[in-house]
Amino acid sequence: MIGINENFLKLRAGYLFPEIGRRVRTFKQEHPDAKVISMGIGDVTQPLAPAVLEAMHRAVDEMGRPETFRGYDDSGVGYEFLRRAIVENDFAARGVSIELDEVFVSDGTKCDTGNMQEIFGIDNVVAVADPVYPVYVDTNVMAGRARGEGILPSNRGQDARDTKEQGQDALATSRGQYAGIVYMPATAENGFVPAPPDRPVDMIYLCFPNNPTGAVATKEALARWVEYARVQKAVIFFDAAYEAFITDPAIPHSIYEVEGAREVAIEFRSGSKTAGFTGVRCAYSIVPKQLKAYTRDGRAVEVNPIWRRRHTTKFNGVSYITQRGAEAVYSPEGKKQVQQTIDLYMANASLIRDALTKLGYTVYGGTNAPYIWVRTPKGVGSWEFFDLLLNKANVVCTPGAGFGPSGEGYVRLTAFGLPQNVREALERLAKL
Amino acid sequence: MIGINENFLKLRAGYLFPEIGRRVRTFKQEHPDAKVISMGIGDVTQPLAPAVLEAMHRAVDEMGRPETFRGYDDSGVGYEFLRRAIVENDFAARGVSIELDEVFVSDGTKCDTGNMQEIFGIDNVVAVADPVYPVYVDTNVMAGRARGEGILPSNRGQDARDTKEQGQDALATSRGQYAGIVYMPATAENGFVPAPPDRPVDMIYLCFPNNPTGAVATKEALARWVEYARVQKAVIFFDAAYEAFITDPAIPHSIYEVEGAREVAIEFRSGSKTAGFTGVRCAYSIVPKQLKAYTRDGRAVEVNPIWRRRHTTKFNGVSYITQRGAEAVYSPEGKKQVQQTIDLYMANASLIRDALTKLGYTVYGGTNAPYIWVRTPKGVGSWEFFDLLLNKANVVCTPGAGFGPSGEGYVRLTAFGLPQNVREALERLAKL
Repeated sequence: MIGINENFLKLRAGYLFPEIGRRVRTFKQEHPDAKVISMGIGDVTQPLAPAVLEAMHRAVDEMGRPETFRGYDDSGVGYEFLRRAIVENDFAARGVSIELDEVFVSDGTKCDTGNMQEIFGIDNVVAVADPVYPVYVDTNVMAGRARGEGILPSNRGQDARDTKEQGQDALATSRGQYAGIVYMPATAENGFVPAPPDRPVDMIYLCFPNNPTGAVATKEALARWVEYARVQKAVIFFDAAYEAFITDPAIPHSIYEVEGAREVAIEFRSGSKTAGFTGVRCAYSIVPKQLKAYTRDGRAVEVNPIWRRRHTTKFNGVSYITQRGAEAVYSPEGKKQVQQTIDLYMANASLIRDALTKLGYTVYGGTNAPYIWVRTPKGVGSWEFFDLLLNKANVVCTPGAGFGPSGEGYVRLTAFGLPQNVREALERLAKL
Repeated sequence: MIGINENFLKLRAGYLFPEIGRRVRTFKQEHPDAKVISMGIGDVTQPLAPAVLEAMHRAVDEMGRPETFRGYDDSGVGYEFLRRAIVENDFAARGVSIELDEVFVSDGTKCDTGNMQEIFGIDNVVAVADPVYPVYVDTNVMAGRARGEGILPSNRGQDARDTKEQGQDALATSRGQYAGIVYMPATAENGFVPAPPDRPVDMIYLCFPNNPTGAVATKEALARWVEYARVQKAVIFFDAAYEAFITDPAIPHSIYEVEGAREVAIEFRSGSKTAGFTGVRCAYSIVPKQLKAYTRDGRAVEVNPIWRRRHTTKFNGVSYITQRGAEAVYSPEGKKQVQQTIDLYMANASLIRDALTKLGYTVYGGTNAPYIWVRTPKGVGSWEFFDLLLNKANVVCTPGAGFGPSGEGYVRLTAFGLPQNVREALERLAKL
């Protein structure tokens, strides 16, 4: 008899964005004439760069001629032309040495962060920030790293395993945290950059510039994490999908700018936000050769060949057309064009920050990230504020509570809208 | 301390195609002037259909204008225009009713067959044919469905679990089969279509038209499998990636042509071989709503929403450009053009079959599949024959033994070459 993977049954039914979608649909049905402006889901709106379009047209033509047609990407990890452009532009240009066979091209950072955990043992203790991008947690729950029945009433700042042992499990609560996962509150007090925990954890998810708070980590903050991981023999999953939005020259774009990080960190990069590739799908992971994980009897194993085996067995490469488009992002014209779009989004971010500050809101992020993390008015919960903005201003935001309990009392606004929509949304908020 | 997933350490080091690649590279280095013709890896050679190219050019243009730009495919399971084309053309046209929300568009059947097992429990017993497409097995080994130390000396036709319990495990042997997985020999005697086993298994991988043997299953043969799965409450993973090559009108293209299959089968389809999409990446899975799996305490759970959760959490949709290309495969011109390419490959298959038969070889497949399964000369092993063809005729084939012990004594030839290369290869074989 076929058994289901019961870990899937521990997942909370409502994923954040479908719930937002449901509320927005209901509102639109009831108010068909309202012009709803989305500042919610972090999807881009600007068209692809002309250099990318040209490269993709050329690649489509190549696929139409027998002498230039391309079938499987035999390496399974991305064409060398793209991996070379990545290594030179994203790393060597910042003084970081990455080898070609440490780069694994993929179809998305969501996929990469979701899949990477598979090559590590089920008994590893996972640590995530709170608030957190839900995919880090959900994929670990699917794999079996949530203990007991799953969701825990409250384990903020506590060791989830201890809590579980205290018999405090419950199937679902409003906090929506899972037993067995260590949540590290990211709050205004710590600048939304949690310090390493005072207990051992094994798999650490860090995202800087952060989704959803827009916070960035200084080199010193990252160095503390690298030091912690080296002492604990932990692995850092470093999600740098938003690095292109960093404007402060002192902020590292890559965790490998920190000495020793090659031995403890995997880095994820994406074309989605950098180059507007959310509908095109291209990303990559860096798995350094120095990175080791351990068998139960303490033997060190190189992680790079294990991930290579996983990636080439369960994945079959990215579209050739997409890879040529991604390569063009690194061309001189491509870089200039992509930067113009990022500047446009960051001008939105600046508008949003300024307007909300003037209106008396406390805002975070938005200077090195496309996300603005806004404190809701006193006593107004984040879903309540979401409903208020939707109903009174017809503006969609993302309730902070959807990212975890420490997100309660905040909403996330994104800078990815069309400038005229952003301005109109801000005018409506001013009238609230 | 970060633990590795030790299941990955059970995998055999040498995946078939890298080993072939290594031998071919060595030969080419030693014989730089030799013109090597590949009839090995099943990759296509003909360019994309003009209708597909046009559609992709149009889609690239759309991505360049703000008013037609597309970001995330919000559904996460494929645009409705593509799912509708699939449902109407691949199923309704053959009298099979599939609903739109039973279709999950993806970037490949390798990925889908590799990922689908994740939503089922680790204790399920997996059954595969021998010879077998290695991905079915490897992804189950990664997930932990190989027992004990992993590879078994010989479990042909035996219950692998019993064998394990008899203490016959060994780390690696020439047979290269894994304890805990049930191998079903596909031999000339059973027409390369194994019958259901006489013991309970839970997850059954079937591939028809078959890779590597080129065999097809009649409706009656599939009906026996569906009946078995219904009785055992097993799930059939039906890989129909090669259905477009079926020429015999009596052979089913979909397992859902068999009554009752919706309750027990998941079907996988691919644009890779049908439309030359190996470098473009588009495929889909069908997960019927009637399909159930069970918790340990016997509760039935619908599989469709569980796969939806997995697919939308660990995957972020297929490139919009690719999806428009895939849609064009179903247009009147697209269908005609794609059929011409398939006819060209099948003409190759027919050439290969006829030439080898005349030379005295025993050949199978090649009439409803792009693969020809050739008996090696008496006393010549399949790797030995591989080396002979490479060295004496400069032709690359795939050794049957690489697909499993029952593949020993065979090599696989593919019909995907350029016609002039196929003719030249056959002339060289004639001179051997």
